Amino acid sequence: MHARFYAPDAHAPGDLVTLPEDEGEHLTRVLRLKPGDALRVFNGHGSEFDAIVDQAGTRGVRVRLHAVAQAAPEPRVAITLAQAVLKGDKMDDVVRDATMLGVAEIQPVITSRTEVTRAALAKGARRDRWERIAISSAKQCGRATVPRLFEPINFDELVESLGRMLLPLPALMLVEPGAATETTPASELDLSPQRGATVLVGPEGGWTPPEIERGASVCRLITVGGRTLRADAMCVVALSAFFTMWREF
Amino acid sequence: MHARFYAPDAHAPGDLVTLPEDEGEHLTRVLRLKPGDALRVFNGHGSEFDAIVDQAGTRGVRVRLHAVAQAAPEPRVAITLAQAVLKGDKMDDVVRDATMLGVAEIQPVITSRTEVTRAALAKGARRDRWERIAISSAKQCGRATVPRLFEPINFDELVESLGRMLLPLPALMLVEPGAATETTPASELDLSPQRGATVLVGPEGGWTPPEIERGASVCRLITVGGRTLRADAMCVVALSAFFTMWREF
Repeated sequence: MHARFYAPDAHAPGDLVTLPEDEGEHLTRVLRLKPGDALRVFNGHGSEFDAIVDQAGTRGVRVRLHAVAQAAPEPRVAITLAQAVLKGDKMDDVVRDATMLGVAEIQPVITSRTEVTRAALAKGARRDRWERIAISSAKQCGRATVPRLFEPINFDELVESLGRMLLPLPALMLVEPGAATETTPASELDLSPQRGATVLVGPEGGWTPPEIERGASVCRLITVGGRTLRADAMCVVALSAFFTMWREF
Repeated sequence: MHARFYAPDAHAPGDLVTLPEDEGEHLTRVLRLKPGDALRVFNGHGSEFDAIVDQAGTRGVRVRLHAVAQAAPEPRVAITLAQAVLKGDKMDDVVRDATMLGVAEIQPVITSRTEVTRAALAKGARRDRWERIAISSAKQCGRATVPRLFEPINFDELVESLGRMLLPLPALMLVEPGAATETTPASELDLSPQRGATVLVGPEGGWTPPEIERGASVCRLITVGGRTLRADAMCVVALSAFFTMWREF
């Protein structure tokens, strides 16, 4: 299997495509590919191609697509992960793992107990960083699709947008055992949603009681097991549980 | 909820129990508890107690157990995680997460592609380190049981011991999609094993073809999804999938 590169402009066999700068550097400096060498490219929107290096020099790397390649299958259920922003590089880990597991979209959320502000996230260009991590994770796990990464929003905005959907999709809010009276264990979620679902995962300190109450108005409250899980492991545990119930695994 | 401490000698209400040294230091130096203060202790074998600090000084910390407390429920299926030893602190993460998810035993395994030798593991007292991590994880997640941590063994010894069982339990070997012809997706594992199961997870470079062939003689080969997962995430993904199928979640 040839090395895989991200080429967002790749559309059809025959195309001559310029790789993004960091992908080009990976190709020339790390893997030292030369014109004529074979590679794979994926465009982040589900398409993958066999390609040949056309030009690799100081003015960038161009590749010629020559055939459509078989991309790794995507889940039938398109999951939007609405993840409370976690501290430090824990959020990076969640973006990486959620991409590997196959989510379609990642919506970072600012909750009452999130310890970073929206302004600080914007200033640190965190969304761009998470996008690079998602691309890198897609490269490694063999996915041809890179999940869409939205700008962070507040929890209240998330709840409002879930309430406003014209064709509501299931929304599943992960809560700790005992956090609310009306909870459903993950293994009782028998039905596969037809098109997609939103999965809400809280921050290190958990959801506040008012957040759980607001969330319950538009979501089912879901538990996974009887123990307290680490905030940064919850996404992997919950997605694995749901994909298993929905026969994606 | 009072702070929880590990007290392996705690057996019954009325007992006067000395805490292990590092637990005692956590109690006196970090949480600054004094004689008469209330706490919880768990013994690592499934029992949890309400207790009172009896003595907290330079000669150690003693606590008096006064009532049996309700421990977090353990999974009905006792899982032995046979995990190929991973590089650096990745194995620490696996021990922490497997404890949090509820495994009963952890068997580190040296495989063909494991990059560390049994002698190096013994010299570095890695088993003791993993045991401390398991205790710490049990403290955090609210478990009263600490998984048993075995000394590392070679893959061949593991396969032999699985083949020698008098009452064989299911053994499930996680493999990549396409690694073998006869694989079962995790979501087709409908039946809950009656007592327990062994779950085999490979190293960073994956199992070798001869290992998959040997493993297949005593295990079912299981896949989770269609993408390549990180070696250190595989344990969480696989355990979450199995616990969901077996209605533990």
